[in-house]
Amino acid sequence: MKKSIGPKTLLGAVPVLVVGTYDEKNMPNLATVAWGGICNSEPPCVNISLRKNRHSYHNIVFRKVFTVNVLFNDQAQEADFYGIVSGSKYNKFEKTRITPVKSELVDAPYGKEFPIVLDCQVVNQIEIGSHVMFVGKILDVKIEDILLDKDGKFDKSKFKPILYIPTLGEYFAMGGYLGKGHSIGRKYISS
Amino acid sequence: MKKSIGPKTLLGAVPVLVVGTYDEKNMPNLATVAWGGICNSEPPCVNISLRKNRHSYHNIVFRKVFTVNVLFNDQAQEADFYGIVSGSKYNKFEKTRITPVKSELVDAPYGKEFPIVLDCQVVNQIEIGSHVMFVGKILDVKIEDILLDKDGKFDKSKFKPILYIPTLGEYFAMGGYLGKGHSIGRKYISS
Repeated sequence: MKKSIGPKTLLGAVPVLVVGTYDEKNMPNLATVAWGGICNSEPPCVNISLRKNRHSYHNIVFRKVFTVNVLFNDQAQEADFYGIVSGSKYNKFEKTRITPVKSELVDAPYGKEFPIVLDCQVVNQIEIGSHVMFVGKILDVKIEDILLDKDGKFDKSKFKPILYIPTLGEYFAMGGYLGKGHSIGRKYISS
Repeated sequence: MKKSIGPKTLLGAVPVLVVGTYDEKNMPNLATVAWGGICNSEPPCVNISLRKNRHSYHNIVFRKVFTVNVLFNDQAQEADFYGIVSGSKYNKFEKTRITPVKSELVDAPYGKEFPIVLDCQVVNQIEIGSHVMFVGKILDVKIEDILLDKDGKFDKSKFKPILYIPTLGEYFAMGGYLGKGHSIGRKYISS
């Protein structure tokens, strides 16, 4: 039986995204957000939501660009750290020994040691409530070449993105394979 | 070393969301989207993106409400089916033997057999490109009581939301526990 638990930010598992920006003094910063994902196919776009009191909010408003860094299981402690302290007080790259690299496409830094990086240009900014959503056009995706097999395709056995369950407030790994999209549901077409 | 693979909708794992709506003939429909997530804390809001040619797009524009249904691993085939055929041609509830229930809070249906359901009211609609993003205020969350322990808290061992890896186009289960949010990163504060 269903039980009503009121309005909550519950939605199964969501991706953990680490946003890279420069502040007005050109200090590179990293901030973890759990409110974000892909929001458009053509052009590929990502959405991230930030509170206005966050250091990265001001950085994005100022430069209109950011990177999204996808971290894997072995960097879960780093991802958590980037979400609990402010870039106005900590040099988060330095604290976690991550090398800041300036993107060639946007005026924003990414972490050399992070496996997947998206270069993003703000195309929309929407006030929602506690948070402001930025929609970023994905200009490029860079991935570590060890994630590709010899044919240049993703090797899914090495794909270990961190997940977050909002209401629980806990991180989880990705688990086993369930099946191919646009395929496993076809049994209902003929039935 | 990093390899540039161009602009793609790659972002680790994203949640699989099944959107419930009524069409103009009051036929209940379900549509799976991979572009969506939580986008605001207060008030709790969800975002979903749909192409304009989808049946559910018109249903949402018409009634300004929808439900978001979170399906677990054992319903991955159903989730895939809801994303590959149109509600203009199929009664997807009937085909998959899911019972449509009209929400008490919004003029939209959910699936009785789905473990987590969000009642949502559209508060914003944003044209992005190929897709239109709807921001829905979450009016209530309903969950199956078997997901709660005796103290009324979520039993995470029963939490099995389906995940999707966009570029691979494949579904995955949630995996092992990595740690507590706002906690495991604290080691870097004192270091």
